[in-house]
Amino acid sequence: MKILISNDDGIDAPGIRALTDLALEFADEVVVVAPNKCFSGMSHSITMHSPLFVDKVCDQKFDDGKQLTMYATNGSPVDCIKIALDELIKHSLPDLILSGVNHGSNSNISVIYSGTMGAATEGAFYGIPSIGFSLTTHDQSADLAPTIHFARQIIAKAISLPSLTPTLCWNVNVPHLPLEKIEGIKFARQTVGVWREDFMKNSNPRGQEYYWMSGRFYNAEPEAHQSDEHCLKNGYVTIVPVQLDMTDYKFLEANGWEF
Amino acid sequence: MKILISNDDGIDAPGIRALTDLALEFADEVVVVAPNKCFSGMSHSITMHSPLFVDKVCDQKFDDGKQLTMYATNGSPVDCIKIALDELIKHSLPDLILSGVNHGSNSNISVIYSGTMGAATEGAFYGIPSIGFSLTTHDQSADLAPTIHFARQIIAKAISLPSLTPTLCWNVNVPHLPLEKIEGIKFARQTVGVWREDFMKNSNPRGQEYYWMSGRFYNAEPEAHQSDEHCLKNGYVTIVPVQLDMTDYKFLEANGWEF
Repeated sequence: MKILISNDDGIDAPGIRALTDLALEFADEVVVVAPNKCFSGMSHSITMHSPLFVDKVCDQKFDDGKQLTMYATNGSPVDCIKIALDELIKHSLPDLILSGVNHGSNSNISVIYSGTMGAATEGAFYGIPSIGFSLTTHDQSADLAPTIHFARQIIAKAISLPSLTPTLCWNVNVPHLPLEKIEGIKFARQTVGVWREDFMKNSNPRGQEYYWMSGRFYNAEPEAHQSDEHCLKNGYVTIVPVQLDMTDYKFLEANGWEF
Repeated sequence: MKILISNDDGIDAPGIRALTDLALEFADEVVVVAPNKCFSGMSHSITMHSPLFVDKVCDQKFDDGKQLTMYATNGSPVDCIKIALDELIKHSLPDLILSGVNHGSNSNISVIYSGTMGAATEGAFYGIPSIGFSLTTHDQSADLAPTIHFARQIIAKAISLPSLTPTLCWNVNVPHLPLEKIEGIKFARQTVGVWREDFMKNSNPRGQEYYWMSGRFYNAEPEAHQSDEHCLKNGYVTIVPVQLDMTDYKFLEANGWEF
C-alpha cells in the first residue's frame, strides 16, 4: 500500500509529522508533498501564474523496508496534490491520500475555506480515496495522540469498505479533549451557518491604515443532532463525507431548466 | 438599488469595468471592491495571517445622481467581499453582488478553483443574491459586448424572481462567440469531469528546476444535455445555480450515520 500526504500548515507542522508516522503503520511507501510555509485558509487555490519549486527533503528507507520520501514546495495544498499525481509519482499512484492533521477546526462551512480539505478534495478528483484530519484547536503544542488514535480507526474503516468508492472524501474533525473524554466517532453533515468577520483596524509604522481579519462562526442550527458542530460539541469525532457537485438541484427542481 | 462588485482578474481588468457600467444601469449606487492584482485560481482563499490594505480609487457622483465608489485591496476576491460587507459598507448592505466578468471559463468543476466564483459564493453566505460571470476565453481584448448583453437579461431575471431567495448564487458562463451566434440562455448543472495537469519543466537563470502548471479538462459526460459544458459547446449561455453544502448525502444514505 502507498499513501500520499499533504497539509496546509506546512511540512514542518507537528500535525503532518504525526500523520506521517501513522501512515507508515499502514503503508509500505509514504510520500509527503507539502507546502514549505503555512497555506492556511487557501481553500482550493492553484498556482497558474508563477513557477513551482520542489525540494526533496527526505528519502529514507527504514530497517523494515518501508520507504518515506518527502518533498517541500512553494505551492498551495492543491498544487502539492497535483504535482504529486501528475508529475512526481505519476507512474505509481497512491492508494490513499491523507491531509493534515490541521491545527484548527474545519467543521461547518470551514470546509470551503480550508487548504487541508482543498488537498483532500483534489485527491478525490483524481479518483483516489482522500481523508482530511483536523483538530479543533490552533494550539501548535496540542496533544495529537487522541487525534491519531481515532485517525487510525478511520483509515482502517476507509480501506476496509466493501467497495472503496474511488471518490471517497472525508472531512474528519476531532474535538480538542483528552482521549477518555471523547465519546466516539459519528458520521455527520455540514452545519448550516455563516462566518462573520471583525476587522481589527490599525496603522503600520508609515501611517498606512490596515485591517486584520478575525471571524467567528454563527451556527444557524445549534440543536441539529446530525450536524458536525453538534456532534463535536457533544464530544464526538465527526466524519462528513464530502461531494464536489456544487449544483443547486433544488433550485432547478423548483424553477425548471428553461430561462 | 445598491450593487457590490468584485472579481479575481483585478480592479483594472476590462471585465470588471464592463460589469460596473452595466450595474449602473440597474442601481443608484455601485460599490466595487476588487483585488489590486490578478487573483485568478484563488478559489475561496482568505487572508488570515497578514494585513489587508484598502485604497479608495474612485468616488464619483454622476449627473443623474448615481454614485460609484471603488476600492482596491491586496486581498483575495473572498477577502474583498468580507471587508466590504463586514467593514466598508456594513451599515448599508447591497441588494445584489456581481463578480467578474472573468476572462476565462468557470464552467464544470472550475467553479471550485475560481476566485470569481469564490467572491460570488461568499456573497451568498451573507444572504445576498450573487452572480458570477465568465467569458470562455482568456483573451483580455475579447469583445465583452455579447456577455454584457446576456448579463443584462440575467440580472433582470434574478431581481424579478417572485421571492428572491437570499442565497441565490449563479455561475454564469458565456461562450466566446459573436452575439448572433449565441443561441440563448439555459440553466445547466456542473459537468462531471476532471482536470489533469501537464507540468512544464524548466530551469531558472541560477539553474534551479521549476515546474509550471498547465492543465486541461477531461469531460466524463460529453453527451449530457443538461451539463454546462454541453450547453456551452452548443452555443448557449449557461447558468448553474450553486449551493454550498458539500455533504455527500448519497454516501450517508447508502452507509448510514453510524461509524
